[in-house]
Amino acid sequence: MGKRVVIAIAGGSGSGKTLLSERLREELKDVAVLPLDAFYRDQSGLTREERAKVNYDDPATIDFAEYHAALRALREGAEEIEIPSYDFADHVRRAPRRLKGAPIIITEGTLLLIPGPHRKEMDYAVFVKTSGDIRLLRRIRRDVAERGRSVSSILDQYLATVRPMHRKWISPSEREADFLFRNDGMDGLDEGEVEKLLEEIRRKIS
Amino acid sequence: MGKRVVIAIAGGSGSGKTLLSERLREELKDVAVLPLDAFYRDQSGLTREERAKVNYDDPATIDFAEYHAALRALREGAEEIEIPSYDFADHVRRAPRRLKGAPIIITEGTLLLIPGPHRKEMDYAVFVKTSGDIRLLRRIRRDVAERGRSVSSILDQYLATVRPMHRKWISPSEREADFLFRNDGMDGLDEGEVEKLLEEIRRKIS
Repeated sequence: MGKRVVIAIAGGSGSGKTLLSERLREELKDVAVLPLDAFYRDQSGLTREERAKVNYDDPATIDFAEYHAALRALREGAEEIEIPSYDFADHVRRAPRRLKGAPIIITEGTLLLIPGPHRKEMDYAVFVKTSGDIRLLRRIRRDVAERGRSVSSILDQYLATVRPMHRKWISPSEREADFLFRNDGMDGLDEGEVEKLLEEIRRKIS
Repeated sequence: MGKRVVIAIAGGSGSGKTLLSERLREELKDVAVLPLDAFYRDQSGLTREERAKVNYDDPATIDFAEYHAALRALREGAEEIEIPSYDFADHVRRAPRRLKGAPIIITEGTLLLIPGPHRKEMDYAVFVKTSGDIRLLRRIRRDVAERGRSVSSILDQYLATVRPMHRKWISPSEREADFLFRNDGMDGLDEGEVEKLLEEIRRKIS
């Protein structure tokens, strides 16, 4: 059995990465999904107040070496691997979970395309490109509806960490992508773009 | 007495136009301020439900001919003119108010630089250029704090009218400006930019 194909889906918070990777999973069938944010470092050594002050949009909070090892194992044909399970409410790791390998690996995360040896494991990289105002708007809707957060805390965090880290790390990494997927619409993905992307990926796979 | 100097301050909602025009007023002293949004058309012929459905980000809701006449009168030396007074809560005009002329006229509004004969009355045009996410964020803070609106209604309106009209009318009008004033900061105006702009305006005046 040859090497598997790794497809990376990067893009800012609220860009629509998850929607796109779910769609690709449906279309491509035999897929394993490896989320980068499972590899957040455990913060149980810090007090609750200290944890609240950590900048979770900074790449330093993710264990990229561990992520790289997991991605490489999957790409090289591992039947099953163990990956961390992260509790975003408490900022600690819980019991790890098992992830089965598959011919196509989709890996997803805001910071996937920043410089580092993990980039060598990617066969095709997509960057979901979405305007800043739309990303903020989606983030507000999601965080208020699903996480019950106050709007003022969302806006404060956006200015303090999300926006500066996006400009420092995420936005410049866009040039590493093989495909820019524009996603400013509020009524789902652009079907023309989905078709174009699937065609490119199928060419890469075959 | 020669013609007066008209300085236009354009830019999207939440860009910081008002902050900048207040600053210019302080610095330039003898200034009269003519706001474009005083010239919204009276909607008293419509029911309350109909008024709520009007797209107030569309240039058609402003009487540009009347605005042009007022701006021309001020520029040509009128001692005092009468301008409309608009009630944004009820979308109707109230009793007009008097505006005294001055050697420098500052006129301010989102749609100032769209095509039209009123543009001939402008001696110097500034466009306040602010990223979409920052404009949305300022708009939310202002509308929640000062106007007591719900966040979901602000976001719905942003998507339905503010954003599409910005892209259609305001953003393309940026190229008509003599000066692009960048204003993404959240701690007030960039003092370096203010100095540069004042220098340009003083050159224009003298």
